Amino acid sequence: MRPRTTALLFVFLACFGGTAFAQQSGAIPFPEGYRNWYVDHSTVGLQGHTPESEVGIQHVYANPAALKGLETGKFDDGAIFVVDRFAYVEDNNKTLSQGDRKVIAVMQRDQQRFKDTGGWGFEAFKRGDPAQRVVTDAAKNCFGCHAPLADNNFLFTRLHR
Amino acid sequence: MRPRTTALLFVFLACFGGTAFAQQSGAIPFPEGYRNWYVDHSTVGLQGHTPESEVGIQHVYANPAALKGLETGKFDDGAIFVVDRFAYVEDNNKTLSQGDRKVIAVMQRDQQRFKDTGGWGFEAFKRGDPAQRVVTDAAKNCFGCHAPLADNNFLFTRLHR
Repeated sequence: MRPRTTALLFVFLACFGGTAFAQQSGAIPFPEGYRNWYVDHSTVGLQGHTPESEVGIQHVYANPAALKGLETGKFDDGAIFVVDRFAYVEDNNKTLSQGDRKVIAVMQRDQQRFKDTGGWGFEAFKRGDPAQRVVTDAAKNCFGCHAPLADNNFLFTRLHR
Repeated sequence: MRPRTTALLFVFLACFGGTAFAQQSGAIPFPEGYRNWYVDHSTVGLQGHTPESEVGIQHVYANPAALKGLETGKFDDGAIFVVDRFAYVEDNNKTLSQGDRKVIAVMQRDQQRFKDTGGWGFEAFKRGDPAQRVVTDAAKNCFGCHAPLADNNFLFTRLHR
């Protein structure tokens, strides 16, 4: 219903910018149990989409606090979003199916702890592996693209019912 | 991970066949609360996919009993699957975003009541409107395509983690 906002989505892995201090390494825990959270919506980056790292089928999960934030417009500490991105496979009937998991990207709300990146901490786990952290500098790797979205709590996502 | 099974998916609306008696009209209630269920996986039918009615981004939901069934291979009465299908919008960066909801399709387990259609009742709600029921003959409209899948409980879906 909101092509622009859903198309833009979370740009965790391929945007640069920002001037704040780097988020402490390991600050964001792996989002255990996210597969049972609310799936707000999904988007698809087809071959040819840029950045190439975002090609795939991806789902945006919200934990209960994040869902409440989408409903109210105010995000309490503890709100967490997850983007779960998969490679896709295309068959001969123009159907795309989920393939291997590419990455799990996380935004976690803590207004004091992450005050330099809009009150959100950022992390990503390659292939969904808790041991393979991707984000080395949240301000540069992630927040640069979210910073212009101050009027939506620095989120690309809005509530889908 | 399983392109064939995920690509085929539920074929509720465009398959014909079957010889069993028609399911009683209104037998399947609207699946209240399905948006908080487990989302097993999603598939995308691109423009050119046949049947055309299945073009879109669609998500497969499982209620707790259906998730248990995916885990164990045995589905108790009360297990419910929902396919939530949306039209999509493509932007100029090859991103597909969810548009209007096209249909909510339902499979509900009741082995005695729906014994003529593999122990599953079928219904679909146009645009997700509880008042707009689509299925007129579950055996013809739905079960004909599911019947060959007896070795997977008549499902196109398998568990995704």
